[in-house]
Amino acid sequence: MSSLSQGSRTARPLLGIGMVGHAFMGRVHSHAWRSVDAFFDLPLRPEMRVVAGRDATRVEAAAARLGWAEASTDWRELLDRDDIALIDICTQGSSHAEIAIAALEAGKHVLCEKPLANSPAEAEAMARAAAKAAGHGVLAMVGFNYRRVPALSLARSLVAEGRLGTLRHVRARYLQDWIVDPEHPLVWRLVREQAGSGALGDIGAHIVDLAEFLTGDHITGVSAITETFIRERPLGAAATGIGARAGEGRGGTGTGIGTVTVDDAAIFLARTAGGALATFEATRFASGRKNALSIELNGSRGSVAFDFEAMNELWFHDHEEPPATAGFRRIPVTDPTHPYTAVWWPPGHGLGYEHSFTHQARDLIEAIASGTTPEPSFDDGLRVQRVLAAVETSAANGSLWTPVAA
Amino acid sequence: MSSLSQGSRTARPLLGIGMVGHAFMGRVHSHAWRSVDAFFDLPLRPEMRVVAGRDATRVEAAAARLGWAEASTDWRELLDRDDIALIDICTQGSSHAEIAIAALEAGKHVLCEKPLANSPAEAEAMARAAAKAAGHGVLAMVGFNYRRVPALSLARSLVAEGRLGTLRHVRARYLQDWIVDPEHPLVWRLVREQAGSGALGDIGAHIVDLAEFLTGDHITGVSAITETFIRERPLGAAATGIGARAGEGRGGTGTGIGTVTVDDAAIFLARTAGGALATFEATRFASGRKNALSIELNGSRGSVAFDFEAMNELWFHDHEEPPATAGFRRIPVTDPTHPYTAVWWPPGHGLGYEHSFTHQARDLIEAIASGTTPEPSFDDGLRVQRVLAAVETSAANGSLWTPVAA
Amino acid sequence: MSSLSQGSRTARPLLGIGMVGHAFMGRVHSHAWRSVDAFFDLPLRPEMRVVAGRDATRVEAAAARLGWAEASTDWRELLDRDDIALIDICTQGSSHAEIAIAALEAGKHVLCEKPLANSPAEAEAMARAAAKAAGHGVLAMVGFNYRRVPALSLARSLVAEGRLGTLRHVRARYLQDWIVDPEHPLVWRLVREQAGSGALGDIGAHIVDLAEFLTGDHITGVSAITETFIRERPLGAAATGIGARAGEGRGGTGTGIGTVTVDDAAIFLARTAGGALATFEATRFASGRKNALSIELNGSRGSVAFDFEAMNELWFHDHEEPPATAGFRRIPVTDPTHPYTAVWWPPGHGLGYEHSFTHQARDLIEAIASGTTPEPSFDDGLRVQRVLAAVETSAANGSLWTPVAA
Amino acid sequence: MSSLSQGSRTARPLLGIGMVGHAFMGRVHSHAWRSVDAFFDLPLRPEMRVVAGRDATRVEAAAARLGWAEASTDWRELLDRDDIALIDICTQGSSHAEIAIAALEAGKHVLCEKPLANSPAEAEAMARAAAKAAGHGVLAMVGFNYRRVPALSLARSLVAEGRLGTLRHVRARYLQDWIVDPEHPLVWRLVREQAGSGALGDIGAHIVDLAEFLTGDHITGVSAITETFIRERPLGAAATGIGARAGEGRGGTGTGIGTVTVDDAAIFLARTAGGALATFEATRFASGRKNALSIELNGSRGSVAFDFEAMNELWFHDHEEPPATAGFRRIPVTDPTHPYTAVWWPPGHGLGYEHSFTHQARDLIEAIASGTTPEPSFDDGLRVQRVLAAVETSAANGSLWTPVAA
Repeated sequence: MSSLSQGSRTARPLLGIGMVGHAFMGRVHSHAWRSVDAFFDLPLRPEMRVVAGRDATRVEAAAARLGWAEASTDWRELLDRDDIALIDICTQGSSHAEIAIAALEAGKHVLCEKPLANSPAEAEAMARAAAKAAGHGVLAMVGFNYRRVPALSLARSLVAEGRLGTLRHVRARYLQDWIVDPEHPLVWRLVREQAGSGALGDIGAHIVDLAEFLTGDHITGVSAITETFIRERPLGAAATGIGARAGEGRGGTGTGIGTVTVDDAAIFLARTAGGALATFEATRFASGRKNALSIELNGSRGSVAFDFEAMNELWFHDHEEPPATAGFRRIPVTDPTHPYTAVWWPPGHGLGYEHSFTHQARDLIEAIASGTTPEPSFDDGLRVQRVLAAVETSAANGSLWTPVAA
Repeated sequence: MSSLSQGSRTARPLLGIGMVGHAFMGRVHSHAWRSVDAFFDLPLRPEMRVVAGRDATRVEAAAARLGWAEASTDWRELLDRDDIALIDICTQGSSHAEIAIAALEAGKHVLCEKPLANSPAEAEAMARAAAKAAGHGVLAMVGFNYRRVPALSLARSLVAEGRLGTLRHVRARYLQDWIVDPEHPLVWRLVREQAGSGALGDIGAHIVDLAEFLTGDHITGVSAITETFIRERPLGAAATGIGARAGEGRGGTGTGIGTVTVDDAAIFLARTAGGALATFEATRFASGRKNALSIELNGSRGSVAFDFEAMNELWFHDHEEPPATAGFRRIPVTDPTHPYTAVWWPPGHGLGYEHSFTHQARDLIEAIASGTTPEPSFDDGLRVQRVLAAVETSAANGSLWTPVAA
Repeated sequence: MSSLSQGSRTARPLLGIGMVGHAFMGRVHSHAWRSVDAFFDLPLRPEMRVVAGRDATRVEAAAARLGWAEASTDWRELLDRDDIALIDICTQGSSHAEIAIAALEAGKHVLCEKPLANSPAEAEAMARAAAKAAGHGVLAMVGFNYRRVPALSLARSLVAEGRLGTLRHVRARYLQDWIVDPEHPLVWRLVREQAGSGALGDIGAHIVDLAEFLTGDHITGVSAITETFIRERPLGAAATGIGARAGEGRGGTGTGIGTVTVDDAAIFLARTAGGALATFEATRFASGRKNALSIELNGSRGSVAFDFEAMNELWFHDHEEPPATAGFRRIPVTDPTHPYTAVWWPPGHGLGYEHSFTHQARDLIEAIASGTTPEPSFDDGLRVQRVLAAVETSAANGSLWTPVAA
Repeated sequence: MSSLSQGSRTARPLLGIGMVGHAFMGRVHSHAWRSVDAFFDLPLRPEMRVVAGRDATRVEAAAARLGWAEASTDWRELLDRDDIALIDICTQGSSHAEIAIAALEAGKHVLCEKPLANSPAEAEAMARAAAKAAGHGVLAMVGFNYRRVPALSLARSLVAEGRLGTLRHVRARYLQDWIVDPEHPLVWRLVREQAGSGALGDIGAHIVDLAEFLTGDHITGVSAITETFIRERPLGAAATGIGARAGEGRGGTGTGIGTVTVDDAAIFLARTAGGALATFEATRFASGRKNALSIELNGSRGSVAFDFEAMNELWFHDHEEPPATAGFRRIPVTDPTHPYTAVWWPPGHGLGYEHSFTHQARDLIEAIASGTTPEPSFDDGLRVQRVLAAVETSAANGSLWTPVAA
């Protein structure tokens, strides 16, 4: 990947990192920061300085386990430190805006988990802060990690090279099943104040971003339905599933019943500026589908299809191939010529979920070193937020066609 | 399947059949009538009496090739014959209502290809005629053949037995790609006067019917987008693809350019009376997808998934299985205990497209013999028609939620 | 496919057919003879004249059901009839030689089910008879039907065109599971006198023939193991599974226990004259695999893979494609440009098991009309028989490498 | 996984590690040692003390990149250090015996990459050294990492619980294609002195071990063919593929042509003590197959199938399920109840190749802490070596059945 000599590796400038939040996302991000320098030839040397969390005992344990030099119970402390240049925000969506804006104002680069915020207004403020910071060479990125799954990066390349021709269809789904059981407790992801929305913002945001990333196009309007199938759930029980795997907090701690205030599922239709039709579905009620993010694009010259259940593969149909030998090709995206893969294992030795984050870390470090704006930017994150808001508006207005704010 | 002795096979009453139309559907229906008695023990013995078509030379050739005893250029002749008890309508949708109503009034049982008609008004008239005929023991069936693919019959059984619990999601797509090329000529299927609608009525009708069949539930409303990507096409060129494979007529015979007056694609959201959310997509622009009818249902106790590209398989997830061994099962639907399969080949020796029609023929003959109303009825076909109409209404009204007429 | 006018269709010479045996294979062959003329433009018009069987009642019932004009309890009668030009042998392997040789000597063309015989000696006599008959324009074909699955015909074309380069590997398996249960009765297929061998001759023969057909090469030697896992089985119980589905006879009719005298499974290694290595496995003990015939070829320029569980698809890897977009393509072998498919349904409307026989019928009729030797010939069948014999010899000699007799 | 409190985490005893070799395997092992403590609750705290390699510059660079505290050019130095308790051997097979025996004699625990050695004699000496060391509480493990892919661990559990009943068939293949091109240079893996054997020892060893691991049974004899398709290759060119990805050495550095002295492919039949038949294939000439390790077991009560191209899935067929709903289930092996998975990501967020090594590291640390012999042991590695030797003997003796030395 680079002709960086070993000598220059040692002499590289440091990039001190402070991370806020240490649940599921914090664990994945830590693994990325811990791994990225061993695989990629980076112009800056990442250092895991401080992790911040609310509970002293838990954040100290997390620092020890995840490899951070120090722990803090106040994320604002991280902004004051000269040895920290990058703030990595892995908290719930409700705190993203406050932390990100403060960090940018303090001159820190920011990596913020998705969705960018819990409302377009927050996201707009964040995008403004990012624009202002960019004027000082301070950069901001939003963490739509799936863009860096090699198979999806390859899909983007094929579209950009024109291999699909004029795009006609986008077909995106993100299916999970972790709250099918009505006894699953009311974890924070089911509470609007904390999560912003339900399946829509948590997983729908990913497929909206992917649709725009892969097509290189924008969603101009939507028609939508959202639904909450189970409106009351037990409080305070021991949480299981995504809400609990990483020790995330619960929505309530008492006993009794609480109200689910977010969507369980969202389905919507959309159009892109370029004239394609798109269908989206995000749900936590698809029994048997665990993390089934799938997306297909059909164009006049070809198609691509991806399913995260087989994350190391891209299916590509070349519509210009003679019919006798045409068909969807199952490309094992593990060749050295594929995006990100040359530094890893030999062909056919697939990667796991977490390395989309490792690739994200690598690209952010490259961007910081070169002073270029990383993608997806806060503007990209804002646009996703506006699509999500349009979905909620349409759903509240009899599925009426709702343009996405520009 | 039956204890019918060979003696009684020979002594069975005859069921004389007249078929109208002999293009793609006529070929498949003929194969079914020719095959059904060799495999199933039928209470009536089907006889292929007369095929009707507009062109004398072509209909005579079709009779000889497809196995009909006689040919006629006037379908009305068939209604006058005492040796014909069943009229099988395989013409374009624009003639369904006239032929079916006349046949029912003449006391003939009717099998009518889908979609039932080109408009709800026609379909309503047909349903009224069917209701009236039923009073005299004359029966009517609409040809949604996919219900009789064994894997989909099995799926229906699993739902009916409660193996899926409360249904939450229906996810249906019917993807083709035969008019991606803008040089594909303006065949009759692209002309509203003849075809009624485009992808919507041709293939969308199938997945609407399947959604209602599999769930045992009704669609109550829709939000929709339809699109015609390519609005002008050459007239009179030699047709290829579905429009031409079976010698079907063209929309125009001159040279020059004509206007496509139907949809190329339709995407829509829906709700069922029972509370499930549904997404539908019907398109002729999915490059690489040839006849990709797929449907998935998710319920509180399990899920099923089907893809016509693997028509002899049903995928079933039992959500009550312990997680350690739970997963979608690929059931090869070729066991003697599966629907329709006992009379065919040993397990694992799969069937082709055409035998959904053979099974349809068998069930219709059984229904006629026992005097019970066959399914799908003209009322079922009417309901599909109303869903299609609601789709077009919604699409014309900014995707606004549009209830399906009851 | 042809410019044959309808007039010439009617005026075509007849080809009278007599079939011997009417169990599983007889049912499939009958379906083929009944269907072939409706789809293909044939130079001769097949007529289903007489079916022969041992039991008068059963053969008469079979004639009525399967569409034969007459029934006979003596297959020799068929050889005397001037209106029968082709004898189709669907009996157990033990009677193939006698019937085929007599038919050829009587000047009848012969289609003989596989395996050609129960021993190389019988097969040699048959091949000699075929060679002699060929001198008089009388033709013989052996029924390795899988060659005419369109996907496998396409695979052969790709190899013949050099798209795979130098072949290195053949990997063939034929897996079934119908006698896993030790209570499955001792049907005739488990008795050496009637069946010749077990999984080896029944299903192993198919993959040996396919390996030679697809590679265009010959197997020169083998190293083998055969095994009978369950050596005693109940006699006389009601048979189920492949042995019984089509009303086939049982190995015994009394009560009690009988001895299995054939192999339950055969596994073997082989080399081809061209230098490829091959592995073969034929078994009736692969729980969950119903009719899983799969074969893969790897060459210096590409690979093909086929699995009968998805019989309308061929997987093709073009090794000369750049790695970035290389991968096995799932070709839906339903395009009009594919072998045999133009006469059937539109692309994506797949065929079933039985149409490999319909295609076989078509090619045989074409060969008879043109006087060219059909493939696979009796010499091809003999070569398969010699491979099977070498397998048994090797298995009996400590798996020692055993050349195939030339 | 454990109730280990954070306090006890900090207070845990250290386990100092020294690694020998830093090419492909060294990179993967380093990643495992770097990651394991962040995910699992370990009784000992692993410390990456020293990495040893032959070239000073390269080993120092490797230490910096891979996270080792120190570098050494003499592996013997590691044996003298009190702060190193475990020697991790990642060198070529030709040096395994010397290093492992010396380490065990020095009282160091040993993890040795597979194959255990380049000959049974070496492996026997190693097993003797391991047995002697075990008397002093010094432990040895061989690195058949695939045992710790969660899907394969689950498969082993299902077999051990009797869910497959009596095993009848093992079907194992390991297919790669990295030397299909005759211009691929003569890397060390193609030279017998360094690699011991070719595809046989490199990848065949894995499937032999897996067959024994999954069945819980031993291979008693084999019948084999080995082949070298391309016997001469260029020397000294820039290497690509597996031989070069991790900066591994080449077999020669000059220009010109050298002789390949190992097998390109090995195919063999086997029997297990328990009566199952097995087929094996290991090749580097399967165009389009990159790292296609697949294995299937069929038993009287069920079957399992695994393909490394979908490493997070196990296919399980329960033969006691009623036929109507029986089929191979695609189990996503990412549930907290599955082996190793609870500490990782939520269900459906799959792992990559490298975490089989992370799990191996975890189990070895647990074994060292508890003083129990880890699996696979050197005895297990020896047995694999004896199977490989029997394969070569059989191949050299006309594929004659060759018992595996006991």
